[in-house]
Amino acid sequence: MNAEIIACGTELLLGQNINTNATYISNSLSRIGLDVFRHLTVGDNKERFSSAIKEALSRSNIVITTGGLGPTVDDITMGTLASVIKKDLVFNKKIYKYIKDSFKKSAFKVPKDAIKQALIPRGADWIENKVGTAPGLIIKHEKKYLIALPGPPRELNPMFEKDIIPFLKKIQPQKWIIKSRSLRLIGLPEAKVNEKVKDLLELSGHTTLGIYTHLGQVELKITSKAHSEKSADSNIKKLEGRIRKRVKDLIYGANKETLQEAVGNILAKKKKRLAVAESCTGGLISNLMTDVSGSSKYFVTGVVAYSNEIKVNRLNVPKELIKKHGAVSKEVAKSMADNIRALANADIGIGVTGIAGPTGQTKKKPIGLVYIALSTKSKKIVKEFRFQGKREEVKLQAAQQALNLLRLNI
Amino acid sequence: MNAEIIACGTELLLGQNINTNATYISNSLSRIGLDVFRHLTVGDNKERFSSAIKEALSRSNIVITTGGLGPTVDDITMGTLASVIKKDLVFNKKIYKYIKDSFKKSAFKVPKDAIKQALIPRGADWIENKVGTAPGLIIKHEKKYLIALPGPPRELNPMFEKDIIPFLKKIQPQKWIIKSRSLRLIGLPEAKVNEKVKDLLELSGHTTLGIYTHLGQVELKITSKAHSEKSADSNIKKLEGRIRKRVKDLIYGANKETLQEAVGNILAKKKKRLAVAESCTGGLISNLMTDVSGSSKYFVTGVVAYSNEIKVNRLNVPKELIKKHGAVSKEVAKSMADNIRALANADIGIGVTGIAGPTGQTKKKPIGLVYIALSTKSKKIVKEFRFQGKREEVKLQAAQQALNLLRLNI
Repeated sequence: MNAEIIACGTELLLGQNINTNATYISNSLSRIGLDVFRHLTVGDNKERFSSAIKEALSRSNIVITTGGLGPTVDDITMGTLASVIKKDLVFNKKIYKYIKDSFKKSAFKVPKDAIKQALIPRGADWIENKVGTAPGLIIKHEKKYLIALPGPPRELNPMFEKDIIPFLKKIQPQKWIIKSRSLRLIGLPEAKVNEKVKDLLELSGHTTLGIYTHLGQVELKITSKAHSEKSADSNIKKLEGRIRKRVKDLIYGANKETLQEAVGNILAKKKKRLAVAESCTGGLISNLMTDVSGSSKYFVTGVVAYSNEIKVNRLNVPKELIKKHGAVSKEVAKSMADNIRALANADIGIGVTGIAGPTGQTKKKPIGLVYIALSTKSKKIVKEFRFQGKREEVKLQAAQQALNLLRLNI
Repeated sequence: MNAEIIACGTELLLGQNINTNATYISNSLSRIGLDVFRHLTVGDNKERFSSAIKEALSRSNIVITTGGLGPTVDDITMGTLASVIKKDLVFNKKIYKYIKDSFKKSAFKVPKDAIKQALIPRGADWIENKVGTAPGLIIKHEKKYLIALPGPPRELNPMFEKDIIPFLKKIQPQKWIIKSRSLRLIGLPEAKVNEKVKDLLELSGHTTLGIYTHLGQVELKITSKAHSEKSADSNIKKLEGRIRKRVKDLIYGANKETLQEAVGNILAKKKKRLAVAESCTGGLISNLMTDVSGSSKYFVTGVVAYSNEIKVNRLNVPKELIKKHGAVSKEVAKSMADNIRALANADIGIGVTGIAGPTGQTKKKPIGLVYIALSTKSKKIVKEFRFQGKREEVKLQAAQQALNLLRLNI
C-alpha cells in the first residue's frame, strides 16, 4: 500500500505558510511502514484540486488531503471530494450538533455558515475534531481510501494520532515497522556531544542514530527498522545503553518529555517546594514550570523583578549590594535566590539576573551575560553564563540553564 | 507566466525534513508577480521525477527543481534533466575548476565523486553556488525554462536572490507585483469575524481578502496584484478602510506586530506603569510583556500567585474573600489586580485567576473558566471567560485576553 498527500491552500502557493502537515503525516506513515509517493500542493481551485485527487487515486491506495474544511467560501474540500466520488453533499446531524455544542461551550452564537461544515459527501465517515469545528472524513471509494483533514496542525495532529493511524494500521497488511526514541540532552553544545558519540552516528544498518540541535538543547534520535515492535525495542535499548555510558549526566529525558516536566517530576518526588525570582527571564521560568499539570504541588511562586526598585522593595535585595556590584552580578542573583526562598517559605530558591538585550550592555557586561543562583538551606550555587542570540533566545537559554541547575541540584 | 516547484528528495517523503524551499521560492515569486500553480515532492526515483517534470512543463512556463544535485548515487537531478530535454551530459571545465578551488580552500582533498557535479546537460547555463559545491542550472527548453537548484536552503537562497530573481524579472513579459498586508484581530472568533466581512472575503479580481485563524486571534490578509507598488498600496489602503469600518475595535496591529508589542507601545506612549498578578497564567503575561525590548520602561513587576497562601501573604488578598467566593472568582481577580497595583506602586494592575486544567475543575467551575480583572485609580473591570483547549492553550488565550483588556482600557 502507498499514499499521497495533497494540500489545498492558496496561502501555501503564495509562500505565506509552510506545509508542515505533509512532513508530519509522512513521518507518522513511515513509522507504520506506509510508503508516501508524492506531496502535492494546489491552490483553492476546485478544478485543479479535483484533477489532482483523481490523478493520485489512479496511482495510490490512500490519498490524504489537508485544508479547505473551514466554513468560508474558499473552503472547497467537501464539494471537491463529493464531485470526485460522484456523490452529493448531505447534511450530517451529528456533526451539526457537535459544532453547535462547541459554540455553546464558548458562549458565542452559532454562526449561519457553520451549517456548511456539516455538509459532507454521502457515505463518508466523520472523524471528530476535538480542537476545532472542521470535521475530518474517511471515504472508501473503489477499494481505495480518501482521507480529508483540516489544515491547522493543532487540529490535524490529534485527529491523525487518535483516529487515522489506528484506521490505517487496521487496513494495512503490515511488514516492517519503524520505531524511534529520542534522548534529550542539556549541558553541552551539539559539537561536543557529537565528539562523544561520533562512531555511533556513523552506524549503518537497521538501527541508526541521528543528532539534532534545538536552542540550548541536543536531541539524539535512535531509529530502528524491524519486523516486530519487540525486536525494534530491543535494538533501541542496546544502542541507548551505549549512549548512556558516555553522556549520562546530560540526558534529562526521552521522547516528548520537556525539561520542565523532568524538573517537576524530581521536585514532586522529593517533595521540595520551589520559588523563583526572575529579572532578565521576565517570567519565562515560572511560565515553563506552570505549563506542567500538577505544578501547583511544588511551584510556590515567581516574582518578576525587572527594576531595582522591585528587587529592593519586593525581594529585599540590599540597596548597597546593587550599588556595589550592579543589578547584573553574582551577588544580586544570590540575594534574589536566598530571599525569594525565605519570603515564599520554599525549600529551593532560584534567582536570575542578566542582560537579554538588544540594549542594556556595558563594556564589562555584554548582552547575553546572565547569572543564575540556586539556594537551599544547605546549598548556595551561582553560575555565570554567556548566551548568544536575540532577546527571546537569551531568555530561553537562561531559563533552560536555570531548570538544568535545578535538575542537577535538587 | 506561471511556475511549478518540484522537490526531489526521499527524506522529504519520509517526513525527516520540511520542504521550506517551496515556501521560500513561492514567496519570492509572488513578490515579482509570478503565479505558482503547484508544489510537488517526489522521491529520489528517476522515472517518477522525470514524469513529474514533463507533466509540469506541459502546464507551466517555468519549472524549478530543488535537491538531487550532490555527488552521491541518490543525486539524480542532472541525469533526469538531461533525459527530459533529450541531451547528453557534458563535462564542464569551469564548474570542475570551481569545485576544485572550493576543496582547496577547505583544506580537504577533492573527492573522486566530485567530477559528477561537473557533468551537466548540454546547453545548460551554470549558476554559481557560493556556499557549496552543487551547481545550479538554467535550461531553456522549447520556449520554457527549467531551473535546477540545490536542496540546502543556505545554498539555494543566496543563488535564488542573486541570480534567479533577476533572470526571471528579465524574461517575464508582464510586470506584476503582489503585495500583502495582514490586519491582526482579537476579541471575536473566526466565524464571527467572518460574518462581518463575508462579502469582502468573496471579492475576486486583483485585490482579495483572506481570513486565517491563530489560537485566540484572527488574521485578515489583504493581497493586491498590481502593475506598481504604488497602485498595490492604494488598493490595499482602500480595502483596509472598508474592513476598519466594520471591525475597528478588534484590530490591534498589522503584519508582524504582536499583541504584546501593541500593548507595550500604548503603555510607553501614555507613560503608564503596569504590574501583573497571575494565578492560572503562571507567568505567561509577564513573559510576553518582557519579550518586548524596552519593556522595563513600563513593566514594573509580575507575581505568580498559584497557591492561596501566596495570594494571601504576598498579594494581601483577604482570606475571607477566598473562603467566601473561592480562589477562582471575580472577587479574588479584582483583589489581585487592586493589590498588585498598590504593592508595586503602578498605574495599572492586572489580576488573573482561573482553571487551566486538566484537573482542578468543579461542577460550577469548569476547566477553562478564567476571571481577568483590570484596576486603575478610576477604573475597575472584571471579565469572565470560558476557554477551550489544553492547559497551555487555556493559558495562552487567557494571557491574550488580559493583554486585550489592557489594550482597550489604558
